[in-house]
Amino acid sequence: MDKIFLIVMIIGFPVSVIGSLLKWPAILMFIIYCLTIVTLAFFMSKATENVSMIAGERIGGLLNATFGNAVELMIAIFSLHAGLIQLVLASISGSVIGNLLFNGGLAFFIGGIKHKRLQFNAYNARHNSVLLIFAVIVAFLFPKFFSYELHSKDVLTLTVSSSVILILLYLAGLYFKLVTHRGVYQTSDEKKAEKETKEQPEWGLWRSLITLIVLTLAAAYISENLVDTFKTVSRTFGWSEIFIGIIIVSIVGNASEYVTAIMMAVKNRVSTTVEIAIGSTLQISMFVAPILVLVSLLFPEQMKLIFTVPEMIAMVLAVLLNVMIMNDGDANWFEGATLVAAYVIMGTGFYLL
Amino acid sequence: MDKIFLIVMIIGFPVSVIGSLLKWPAILMFIIYCLTIVTLAFFMSKATENVSMIAGERIGGLLNATFGNAVELMIAIFSLHAGLIQLVLASISGSVIGNLLFNGGLAFFIGGIKHKRLQFNAYNARHNSVLLIFAVIVAFLFPKFFSYELHSKDVLTLTVSSSVILILLYLAGLYFKLVTHRGVYQTSDEKKAEKETKEQPEWGLWRSLITLIVLTLAAAYISENLVDTFKTVSRTFGWSEIFIGIIIVSIVGNASEYVTAIMMAVKNRVSTTVEIAIGSTLQISMFVAPILVLVSLLFPEQMKLIFTVPEMIAMVLAVLLNVMIMNDGDANWFEGATLVAAYVIMGTGFYLL
Amino acid sequence: MDKIFLIVMIIGFPVSVIGSLLKWPAILMFIIYCLTIVTLAFFMSKATENVSMIAGERIGGLLNATFGNAVELMIAIFSLHAGLIQLVLASISGSVIGNLLFNGGLAFFIGGIKHKRLQFNAYNARHNSVLLIFAVIVAFLFPKFFSYELHSKDVLTLTVSSSVILILLYLAGLYFKLVTHRGVYQTSDEKKAEKETKEQPEWGLWRSLITLIVLTLAAAYISENLVDTFKTVSRTFGWSEIFIGIIIVSIVGNASEYVTAIMMAVKNRVSTTVEIAIGSTLQISMFVAPILVLVSLLFPEQMKLIFTVPEMIAMVLAVLLNVMIMNDGDANWFEGATLVAAYVIMGTGFYLL
Repeated sequence: MDKIFLIVMIIGFPVSVIGSLLKWPAILMFIIYCLTIVTLAFFMSKATENVSMIAGERIGGLLNATFGNAVELMIAIFSLHAGLIQLVLASISGSVIGNLLFNGGLAFFIGGIKHKRLQFNAYNARHNSVLLIFAVIVAFLFPKFFSYELHSKDVLTLTVSSSVILILLYLAGLYFKLVTHRGVYQTSDEKKAEKETKEQPEWGLWRSLITLIVLTLAAAYISENLVDTFKTVSRTFGWSEIFIGIIIVSIVGNASEYVTAIMMAVKNRVSTTVEIAIGSTLQISMFVAPILVLVSLLFPEQMKLIFTVPEMIAMVLAVLLNVMIMNDGDANWFEGATLVAAYVIMGTGFYLL
Repeated sequence: MDKIFLIVMIIGFPVSVIGSLLKWPAILMFIIYCLTIVTLAFFMSKATENVSMIAGERIGGLLNATFGNAVELMIAIFSLHAGLIQLVLASISGSVIGNLLFNGGLAFFIGGIKHKRLQFNAYNARHNSVLLIFAVIVAFLFPKFFSYELHSKDVLTLTVSSSVILILLYLAGLYFKLVTHRGVYQTSDEKKAEKETKEQPEWGLWRSLITLIVLTLAAAYISENLVDTFKTVSRTFGWSEIFIGIIIVSIVGNASEYVTAIMMAVKNRVSTTVEIAIGSTLQISMFVAPILVLVSLLFPEQMKLIFTVPEMIAMVLAVLLNVMIMNDGDANWFEGATLVAAYVIMGTGFYLL
Repeated sequence: MDKIFLIVMIIGFPVSVIGSLLKWPAILMFIIYCLTIVTLAFFMSKATENVSMIAGERIGGLLNATFGNAVELMIAIFSLHAGLIQLVLASISGSVIGNLLFNGGLAFFIGGIKHKRLQFNAYNARHNSVLLIFAVIVAFLFPKFFSYELHSKDVLTLTVSSSVILILLYLAGLYFKLVTHRGVYQTSDEKKAEKETKEQPEWGLWRSLITLIVLTLAAAYISENLVDTFKTVSRTFGWSEIFIGIIIVSIVGNASEYVTAIMMAVKNRVSTTVEIAIGSTLQISMFVAPILVLVSLLFPEQMKLIFTVPEMIAMVLAVLLNVMIMNDGDANWFEGATLVAAYVIMGTGFYLL
């Protein structure tokens, strides 16, 4: 896996640069950028993991919170700058739906074919469920309803204060997990397993840090150029801003996590799968999305966290279904199939929109 | 119980035939048809059970999926043929609400008066909860929201693809329960109990099969005639298509299951009660409803699975309340009373509509 | 705590009487009335507790059901009489949201800082969850949806019948808890703990009863005068009827419960905290609210239990979040912070409205 990604990256990046300088056709460049950025994201998450292992769990947790969705964050910021607010909102809801239903579902399905019962820590699952409900149902849905009755200026006030609260609660959640309640909800089996599977970092600290910085710069370069191709792509294929955001950007931004989650489920390390699928969703909804709101205050057009009705209903249903399935800390191939089936129905709906 | 039903059936069927030939008044025939078809449904489910016991659980499961709601399916197909689409949709939502709240609630209430705690397998309950949420909240509610924003033709595409996915997931669920995960979630007590209570079939294979075929033909005959009386009944009593569907058809179609579920709860065999109430709801929402959508493609007017707002909200609330109550595998008379109270409030609402 | 409250009460009541006779400015009197009535509520609940301890759990349960929210009930009845129906509905929804999110959240947060895991009976929590969902989601939300499609007269019929069912179910719940299933769902540890912490009443029966009657009369007097100041307060500060109801009345009516709940959480008696926060919510939604509907039938303008969309959505989200957090019988400071964060977002929304 690593090798294929490495080759694509080593070929993809120079080709991207040359293509963008020589102004190759936008559709071709769109495909090259997408492939390249997926591989960059993959090695960025690898470098982040390495730094985390060396720097300890606390700094690692913070690093991961910042770099875990760096690619999505960069694409979103360049899109905001280009005024593509609907696209950014759609990429947020697309990431929520994709991570919860498609990523989680596929991982459970494939992992569940190899192992009869996939078991994971039910306390963690419930902790995550509470946060999912808070983020998507309280912080996203509640302002949506109020947006019908409030002036546009007041909606912005509500969205900014919700964003600040989301970020504070996200940081409080890290503090809870890594400091005050570290290991409190772990079973003794899990503690033992954790010690045994303690992994060694592949790369040293400096190598990891330099890799991280270089890849981030490369990803920023590609992101900016990728956003420029959206308008042509949208015109050529007749895709709407929402469709590009909800499908293309969310897949490009999360592809490397999908691969990791499924590989972990096959190895029966389902706790890691769940951590990736739900953790990434929480990171996007409680950290990336509110950061984008605050960043957009610097731009001429501000972004409100007010999603369209179809996006909102898809996110709420994805959360409800996920919460029901995760709640007991036990999954199987059929529950995975159910999640994927929900994703297919929703995908059909958005395709027809 | 069996004897009363047998007498009603033996008298009811010839009277139905004579009445329909002599063109007796529609209201009288409506009552006779209803009574007769309830008894036919009762003995059809009995015959199906017998065949299942002899043929083994797998074929039995499939048989049950096909014949379990055969009467409702037939009434619905004849109604579709007569263009009564609102009535068919109402009979689906009426079955969901009636099974979850009235049937489940009454069984828990009556069973709970005799036994302090009614306990059943919590894993099965959660498995069913996931499917309920999938069927009613994802596959029914999601297209409802999209129907406001899509062209009529695209709504049909969405409804047909949701239907195909529902049927596939329902069959996958049978495969999960009967093949890959048979007994995986059972406690050792349950396994022992299952062995001990293994019932012997009352009738032989041939007798069961012939009975099943004869009764199905009789039920088809009555269903067709029953549907013809709906227009007169609706005019005479001032009942709307929705009211006839949600109350009359759903009670007629499920009456025999109500009786069985309550009898099982009194005997403290609550797992069977739950299996009947929820299993029947799932069969209707994941198998009967989508089959009807596909069948309706052959008719001049197609049926979309788009319910009215009151039906939709009633189904969603019924599922939420049921999921909360079932989730811990423990029920009592008060939880039964709560379900019935919800049914009464909803019934009042539909009556006033 | 007791002493401060006693002093405020002893000074506050005569000042209230003098001020109302001398017609002091309404804003000043509004503040004095609020302070006084909070202390009256505190000692009323204390007297009720004393009578309960002496009279036994069953009569105590009934007494508590009647006097537990007596102050709110009185303010509401005087408000109904003054035609302030929106304010009464807002005070009901404000109590639901405030108890579930602010009171419960603050108690968990403060208690959770002292104790790592706050544990309470999960069965009770689930029992309460079912009732919360029944009251807020079935009995409040369902008629809301029907109110769009029904005539005003039929909405009143639906609201009155829902109210009667709510009261009956509330009484059935008391019967369940105190008679048929007393102690059935308790762990042996809890039974032991209950015996050991059996408290002795501070006051005798007569002293408690006389105190209760005197304080109730005093509170009725203040309530009536407090309601008269609402119009001036609303005009002076530019607050809407809904804002006064949802914030001021709900805080004044529940302040003494907030204090008790937090004190109990600090002592790690979390079951009591939960009982207060959720029990009080249930009392208001299943007993006080429907009683008010029935009382309003005697007045020129009847109250329907049809809340505004923002109130309804806030209540539903508060219930969902609470149910998710309570469900496992285990809380911590972070879950408390999450509840308070939801309250802050909602409060901001209502402030901007």
